[in-house]
Amino acid sequence: MGIQNAIADLISSLGQQVTRSKSDLEIHGRSESHFSLSPPDAVVYPETTAQVAEILTICARHRCPVVGWGTGTSLEGQSQAVLGGVVVDFSRMNRILSIAAEDMTVTVQPGVTREALNEELRATGLFFPVDPGANASLGGMAATRASGTTAVRYGTMRDNVLALEVVTASGEVIRTGTRARKSSAGYDLTGLFVGSEGTLGLVTELTLRLQGTPEAISAAVCAFESVGDAVAAVIDTIQCGVPMARIELMDTESVAAVNAYAGMGLAPKPHLLLEFHGTEASVREQAETFGMIAKDRGGSGFDWASRPEDRSALWTMRHNAYYAILAARPGARAIVTDICVPISKLARAIEDTRADLERSGVQGPILGHVGDGNFHAVLLVDEHAPDEIMRAKQVSERMVERALALGGTSTGEHGIGIGKLGYMAREHGGGWAMMGAIKAALDPDNIMNPGKLVPPRT
Amino acid sequence: MGIQNAIADLISSLGQQVTRSKSDLEIHGRSESHFSLSPPDAVVYPETTAQVAEILTICARHRCPVVGWGTGTSLEGQSQAVLGGVVVDFSRMNRILSIAAEDMTVTVQPGVTREALNEELRATGLFFPVDPGANASLGGMAATRASGTTAVRYGTMRDNVLALEVVTASGEVIRTGTRARKSSAGYDLTGLFVGSEGTLGLVTELTLRLQGTPEAISAAVCAFESVGDAVAAVIDTIQCGVPMARIELMDTESVAAVNAYAGMGLAPKPHLLLEFHGTEASVREQAETFGMIAKDRGGSGFDWASRPEDRSALWTMRHNAYYAILAARPGARAIVTDICVPISKLARAIEDTRADLERSGVQGPILGHVGDGNFHAVLLVDEHAPDEIMRAKQVSERMVERALALGGTSTGEHGIGIGKLGYMAREHGGGWAMMGAIKAALDPDNIMNPGKLVPPRT
Ligand SMILES: Cc1cc2nc3c(=O)[nH]c(=O)nc-3n(C[C@H](O)[C@H](O)[C@H](O)COP(=O)(O)OP(=O)(O)OC[C@H]3O[C@@H](n4cnc5c(N)ncnc54)[C@H](O)[C@@H]3O)c2cc1C
Ligand SMILES: Cc1cc2nc3c(=O)[nH]c(=O)nc-3n(C[C@H](O)[C@H](O)[C@H](O)COP(=O)(O)OP(=O)(O)OC[C@H]3O[C@@H](n4cnc5c(N)ncnc54)[C@H](O)[C@@H]3O)c2cc1C
Repeated sequence: MGIQNAIADLISSLGQQVTRSKSDLEIHGRSESHFSLSPPDAVVYPETTAQVAEILTICARHRCPVVGWGTGTSLEGQSQAVLGGVVVDFSRMNRILSIAAEDMTVTVQPGVTREALNEELRATGLFFPVDPGANASLGGMAATRASGTTAVRYGTMRDNVLALEVVTASGEVIRTGTRARKSSAGYDLTGLFVGSEGTLGLVTELTLRLQGTPEAISAAVCAFESVGDAVAAVIDTIQCGVPMARIELMDTESVAAVNAYAGMGLAPKPHLLLEFHGTEASVREQAETFGMIAKDRGGSGFDWASRPEDRSALWTMRHNAYYAILAARPGARAIVTDICVPISKLARAIEDTRADLERSGVQGPILGHVGDGNFHAVLLVDEHAPDEIMRAKQVSERMVERALALGGTSTGEHGIGIGKLGYMAREHGGGWAMMGAIKAALDPDNIMNPGKLVPPRT
Repeated sequence: MGIQNAIADLISSLGQQVTRSKSDLEIHGRSESHFSLSPPDAVVYPETTAQVAEILTICARHRCPVVGWGTGTSLEGQSQAVLGGVVVDFSRMNRILSIAAEDMTVTVQPGVTREALNEELRATGLFFPVDPGANASLGGMAATRASGTTAVRYGTMRDNVLALEVVTASGEVIRTGTRARKSSAGYDLTGLFVGSEGTLGLVTELTLRLQGTPEAISAAVCAFESVGDAVAAVIDTIQCGVPMARIELMDTESVAAVNAYAGMGLAPKPHLLLEFHGTEASVREQAETFGMIAKDRGGSGFDWASRPEDRSALWTMRHNAYYAILAARPGARAIVTDICVPISKLARAIEDTRADLERSGVQGPILGHVGDGNFHAVLLVDEHAPDEIMRAKQVSERMVERALALGGTSTGEHGIGIGKLGYMAREHGGGWAMMGAIKAALDPDNIMNPGKLVPPRT
């Protein structure tokens, strides 16, 4: 059989770097979300690009499925080997290769995590802004087109990956993009690989854009009477040109969860959490402008902090919100949803989702990167109650339908994986077949993360 | 023959919207740059997406080449029908379809020009930032991945196109992207079409991101002793996080040309031209920070202006620099070069180019969007002096080689067309074949702007 022959060749070529231990297969068969275990047939730990090329050459020869693995934190089952085959775990390719401080770029191997990178950058006065909360790998973040709290100011992985080294489905090593900040030299292959979830090739090196650590940072928190008022304040703030670095919404249910988990003592109302970056003077001006807007929109308890410890308490709370919400219903599992709409439709999308949750009797605190029009509901379900799971999935499906009807997308940042494959035709129409044609051209034997993202081969 | 049969069908379907008049063919056979005339066999003026679909269905049936045409200002021969066939001129598809002020987006037909759009937006307090100088069409700007003076702050067409309607090579109408600000739903088809120079399909609608008109704008100009000092000031300013809206370099030769053309009276030294956007206070702070940095780098004559008439004189001068340079040698034609390098290599790239120009005896003022590491030399040649043209082309070729050796790209913004096709293999290696595979998958009969961008079909 193809897979077994491939594994035999991999072992003779890479020896101890190939494992089939039960625990390793299970670790690489699990998912952060609610999908069931699907262990691969083997896990390989490459240490160099040449080894990745060797792996893909062998797998191409035997038509063996290959699935990349960063830290396995993706939420739609992206890194699960649903058709078996080999998982390529990039954890040993975790070197920072070069920092170009004047150019504000860095070149890394794909297994470097976001936190490790920022740790290493600290001394340079630069930082990498994309922040999905989880300590994900940069290869995985590129593959899912991740974003997070700071995208409103600094963009997503789409905006922050300058160049890639990729090993194609046939084992060829190619480079996309350059270290120049922009280019008009042909198709944007870098942009094509970012967000492709390992279905077109494996990323073995990334050149990323960095930002200068701001001279001053301040954070703020503000309660509103309704989600509508909070979102109106966000829109006003953006239209005034205030360059917010972060602007996050937590609805009343999320606030209750973090109050219980971290003893935050926030008023039981929707809250915005903000961060401003700039010079001392501009940060003060930004916070003041926001304060005035918030007041106009009925905001209360507006409070801003430039002390690092207060800021860090605030963002720790935000980053732990997922766990706080999980703790709100002990023993429950989470189905995390993720839609993104034009910001003028955001309040409506959130309010309709809230009403739908009430109607369906599903517990689902809502939080979001509202500057982007992006939000999540964390649907808490008892995994032994099929009826509850079904109702939660229906809520999730209606969220997507609502997003599409409002001119938005089925996923703002978590990606497709297996969880959202069913919406691709609805979202893209004929564009989905076009994605299939691209996949077929670049991976004719369908070995790269098969069963994901594109239409099934017929 | 295919082309003639296609034209017959087009005429019976679209009547008067098809022309074969000599003058029309010649207008659509010319180029802004130094490429020779290559008239198409017919020009069609569609008025609706349905008509574009009809045109492509007919051309697909007869395998007739189809070339999109916006305003024909592209500089590398992109819109020339080098293999004959039909030019599709979008000038009648010039409606602004909808402005979503809260979302800060606009949806337009491809024939709308940049200036027409900003005229229409004036009353809304919003503007579209991408500014290639020429009053190009938005369809053409997307197709060449255009940028310009403001890209350092607001990005290029890559960053500012949210969604597209595209007619494919088979005549199918698809939509890419949504009106949401970000998405992780599959391959970035929008990004694939942006920069594809009409080789994958024709764009019939674009949804663009807009920016709020800043509360305050100020401009500044500053002379430096050397290009190296000027570039060092740019790097320092970016590293300080000053969010410059424009930062342009003119070398001594360019300064001489604008002095002669527009009586500017600038010192005969390299100059930076800047623009700051923000609140009154932040614009003042930005200008002051820049002033200090400039002084440290030996800058002189630093002068900043927030009066609209002074600013507009400055940017009119910059936008007319191309014509000022042409006027510096009456009767000459221009070969415009365009490379982009990591900013740490910019001074070296410019200085080496200057030395090469001197050695080769070619007249070539240099100017650039230096915040991006992007610059142009406008090589002035007598079109009846083959030897001179050859020397100029050699300088241009060495510029590209230098850019690639320094980790940059053969074109920062003007694109490939026919002028830079010869560098694609060098720049992209195996990635170029990948572009060819994508093209073959999406346009199997090679009717979309054939002879451009991808490797020749074998
Ligand atoms: C608590 C929590 C909060 C989160 N919040 C956010 C958030 O705010 N925003 C957000 O965007 N995401 C969020 N996520 C999701 C997750 O962190 C992101 O999807 C992240 O990008 C996944 O990175 P990873 O390294 O874990 O990738 P993995 O899960 O290991 O893999 C993800 C995909 O990338 C592919 N892949 C991995 N490495 C490579 C490679 N080198 N080459 C090619 N393909 C590769 C895999 O095959 C898979 O398809 C959150 C997750 C958790 C658990
Ligand atoms: C004085 C001057 C200064 C310039 N400065 C800059 C600058 O600073 N930055 C910059 O980026 N450029 C600059 N340019 C180049 C030019 O303005 C850009 O390349 C511009 O994007 C071309 O737009 P256009 O509408 O004229 O397109 P065209 O020249 O008509 O076409 C360009 C390409 O797009 C394709 N195309 C046109 N419309 C469509 C459509 N609807 N669908 C699919 N394909 C289509 C064509 O087939 C062709 O391949 C300058 C040009 C001049 C003359």
